[in-house]
Amino acid sequence: MSDLITIAKQTGSAFRLKKGQLLKVIDPQGGQVSDLVLFNEADVREKISAGKTMDFEESILISENNFLWSNRSRKMMKIIKDTNGRNDILLAPCSPETFEIMYDHKGYHPSCFENLHTNLENFGITPDDIPTAFNIFMNVQFEPDGKLSVLPPTSTAGDYVLLEAQMDLIIGMTACSAEDSNGGTFKPIQYQILGSEDKPKN
Amino acid sequence: MSDLITIAKQTGSAFRLKKGQLLKVIDPQGGQVSDLVLFNEADVREKISAGKTMDFEESILISENNFLWSNRSRKMMKIIKDTNGRNDILLAPCSPETFEIMYDHKGYHPSCFENLHTNLENFGITPDDIPTAFNIFMNVQFEPDGKLSVLPPTSTAGDYVLLEAQMDLIIGMTACSAEDSNGGTFKPIQYQILGSEDKPKN
Repeated sequence: MSDLITIAKQTGSAFRLKKGQLLKVIDPQGGQVSDLVLFNEADVREKISAGKTMDFEESILISENNFLWSNRSRKMMKIIKDTNGRNDILLAPCSPETFEIMYDHKGYHPSCFENLHTNLENFGITPDDIPTAFNIFMNVQFEPDGKLSVLPPTSTAGDYVLLEAQMDLIIGMTACSAEDSNGGTFKPIQYQILGSEDKPKN
Repeated sequence: MSDLITIAKQTGSAFRLKKGQLLKVIDPQGGQVSDLVLFNEADVREKISAGKTMDFEESILISENNFLWSNRSRKMMKIIKDTNGRNDILLAPCSPETFEIMYDHKGYHPSCFENLHTNLENFGITPDDIPTAFNIFMNVQFEPDGKLSVLPPTSTAGDYVLLEAQMDLIIGMTACSAEDSNGGTFKPIQYQILGSEDKPKN
């Protein structure tokens, strides 16, 4: 079991995770989103696909017992445990343009997109390679007419999602930088890497 | 105005469309889906993003007056007219694995994924570059609990979607090959390229 690692508010991290290892993503204060992207360590052209995940899992809402799938139709991670239960896989990571276009914000604004591609650069991943993420704790509501709205997360302090790697992975993760996604305040995200021996029984 | 071009059942096509030109996608018999993918002609690393489209349009359902957005947060096409009104942008193009995993099909099966990447190969686009498509006439229903189901299209003979290019594009299009998406029968799709002078008034 690794140390508990903290991703400071409005920043990101990138690291390797081996097949069978577990990633525990923790919301230490509550109400904070973490964008998660996945790449096959052996060939980063294989990566998480929101469209394939929703297709194979036959659901918009992805939680405990669902898999995250790649653009090559292979399982990348399994969600072993999800204490909160609300995540999003519809919306792309917030980017500089998100704040220009949707928030009418002028000037620099931190974003998940920047925090993903700058941290993943060392692994040969470019900005254009950043896919739609699995947005842990993100609370996107949808109406029968398709209308989407982003509400504050329902997660409270200590909520976590535990995921098991199905292949050797390169992972990018953030503490999300978008006001609306995080109830208007920015908090850190924590994570821990666990061995297969730490996998919960049953 | 170009000739009316027919995409035979379970096949695909790829072509250029200049900024300001219109693409009319027609369901000549009714009940047939067409997967549409878009690339920036000047740099094919810029392409349609389902996650950015749902984010900026704030909707799962994309129809008349919505834009299709790229991974670089730019408008690629505008939907000028949609006579049927039901399309999908959630699910990835059907691929060989779709039929293996979801249909339990053994052996070869035509797929949108194959029909997109083989037709787009001449433009330097590889299988790994194929994004989640805009699935014209595809009728994906979603429940409040997120559960997805694929129903037969509601389109009838002659229904069409008219889209205006917002930049110079390379386009991939199919007549979809998945049984469930097309009510169990495979039909052709037709398209026509129109000049800006053919754009409907008002």
